[in-house]
Amino acid sequence: MVSGEALGLGPLLLKAENLQRTGSFKPRGAFNAVLQLTADERARGVITLSAGNHGQALALAARSLGIQCLVVAPQTAPQTKLAAMRRFGAEIIQTPSVRLQEAVEGMRLVHPFADERVIAGQGTVGLEILEAVPDLALVVVPVGGAGLISGLALAIKSVKPEVRVVGVEPVGAAVVSESLRAGRPVVLERIETVADGLAAPYATALNLAMVRRFVDEVVCLDDADILDGLRRVVLDARLVVEPAGAASVAAIACGRVKVAGSGSTVAVLTGGNLDASRLAGWLQTKKSPDPTGQGT
Amino acid sequence: MVSGEALGLGPLLLKAENLQRTGSFKPRGAFNAVLQLTADERARGVITLSAGNHGQALALAARSLGIQCLVVAPQTAPQTKLAAMRRFGAEIIQTPSVRLQEAVEGMRLVHPFADERVIAGQGTVGLEILEAVPDLALVVVPVGGAGLISGLALAIKSVKPEVRVVGVEPVGAAVVSESLRAGRPVVLERIETVADGLAAPYATALNLAMVRRFVDEVVCLDDADILDGLRRVVLDARLVVEPAGAASVAAIACGRVKVAGSGSTVAVLTGGNLDASRLAGWLQTKKSPDPTGQGT
Repeated sequence: MVSGEALGLGPLLLKAENLQRTGSFKPRGAFNAVLQLTADERARGVITLSAGNHGQALALAARSLGIQCLVVAPQTAPQTKLAAMRRFGAEIIQTPSVRLQEAVEGMRLVHPFADERVIAGQGTVGLEILEAVPDLALVVVPVGGAGLISGLALAIKSVKPEVRVVGVEPVGAAVVSESLRAGRPVVLERIETVADGLAAPYATALNLAMVRRFVDEVVCLDDADILDGLRRVVLDARLVVEPAGAASVAAIACGRVKVAGSGSTVAVLTGGNLDASRLAGWLQTKKSPDPTGQGT
Repeated sequence: MVSGEALGLGPLLLKAENLQRTGSFKPRGAFNAVLQLTADERARGVITLSAGNHGQALALAARSLGIQCLVVAPQTAPQTKLAAMRRFGAEIIQTPSVRLQEAVEGMRLVHPFADERVIAGQGTVGLEILEAVPDLALVVVPVGGAGLISGLALAIKSVKPEVRVVGVEPVGAAVVSESLRAGRPVVLERIETVADGLAAPYATALNLAMVRRFVDEVVCLDDADILDGLRRVVLDARLVVEPAGAASVAAIACGRVKVAGSGSTVAVLTGGNLDASRLAGWLQTKKSPDPTGQGT
């Protein structure tokens, strides 16, 4: 846990998962899933779909057990993340639309968020926060497909139900918010966000049920606010985060989520895998003026 | 202590002082000095000379005790650092050449490196490394005026004399190396380095005596190697460091310092205070080819 004092956003702690192995929280779920495979499943290998961080984590987990790993990635996946997956030994198939079922048979799917073993692994983020922060009042968590927040909220609410858990997703990939509103999992026709780590194209019944039961609120942010959060985390807290990783701090910085009045607030920084040129560009972009004129 | 595994430079730990209050190790020495002032000295206030990080730290320490703080800064000091000093309550005088003695009388000087209380405070970095790393073999430390390495090496050699301590300074501000060579403190006529945090214009007898007694070696790096180290720390270790802060990792990355064959190596990341536009520029600069053709 790192102090967020330098951000000037009130009493705030940062769970710096960008400093995890592979640069994100994802190895927690990937290792938990891979370690539970049968001998037969290990022999056949694992497959997943990922734009980057889950793929790197699964590749690392698979390699550490000598298992074959295939990642189906969208054609828009960042080059740095694809290169890292290959470095960890994964084979990659890039497809315009991800049709996993037709792609490969026989390999065991380790889904990035709709997998109970993955969710349980991500839940260790919640357990570590509980252990490190005795007066915990609020946890703010970036949301893509909701694998992390499902496990984290389950862990935290099981131990301390009075702690608030708030999710943050990009307005241009708000699949969880829209599914909650629709009362069923929806598929997004179009995804448009700078936060590739949160660009899940659909939600699943498993994650939605857990979000409904354990998460207090999910808020949506536009990309300008997310990038403003990124600049603050990089320049003021001196931690490198990707846009997805900064969404939690961004929600507090732009006023959509208030830090707890009493007790500690923790913002989860989910990852920090970035191309140099994209980071350089975001650092130099000024926040666009608020079109509503209401400011933040 | 943060794992440096992601850097791919062998077994390496990072002492992440960029995550300290004010973004550098400097509050350790500044607080130790200010807490030892007499009531009379407190009433008259403190003065120092600093391009940035020591000034911020002294301003914070002074403010926390209700003491007036004046910083004499070179005209080349980065705007972000000057703004931070002001935010912490310091008054600033900018001068083309630093002539402290003539600037102000009556205030107690807290020198950035030639002060025993400051050196002792910086030494806590060494004590913390000893405590965290039982099999410590080598510590690599950026060197400006040698305040940090003086205290750190004194602490480490007093407890465990077999640990190697290696300093790293920029070729364009190699005041410690040149003074060691000359056998007396020298004043540099010209300073030219991207690492403003290491741009000390002179060495002092106090620091030189400590370096001679407690430091095993001081190596010099050019700016291209320092910036290559910065890019690695930012993109691979996901920690934001200024050029000065990256010099230790840079020395290992370019092959000038080898990680220990047995036991742990620690690289000290001294600070992470940066302008967005300078960081963006450095991220996009490619390392210039080695003119000797020998590579690294």
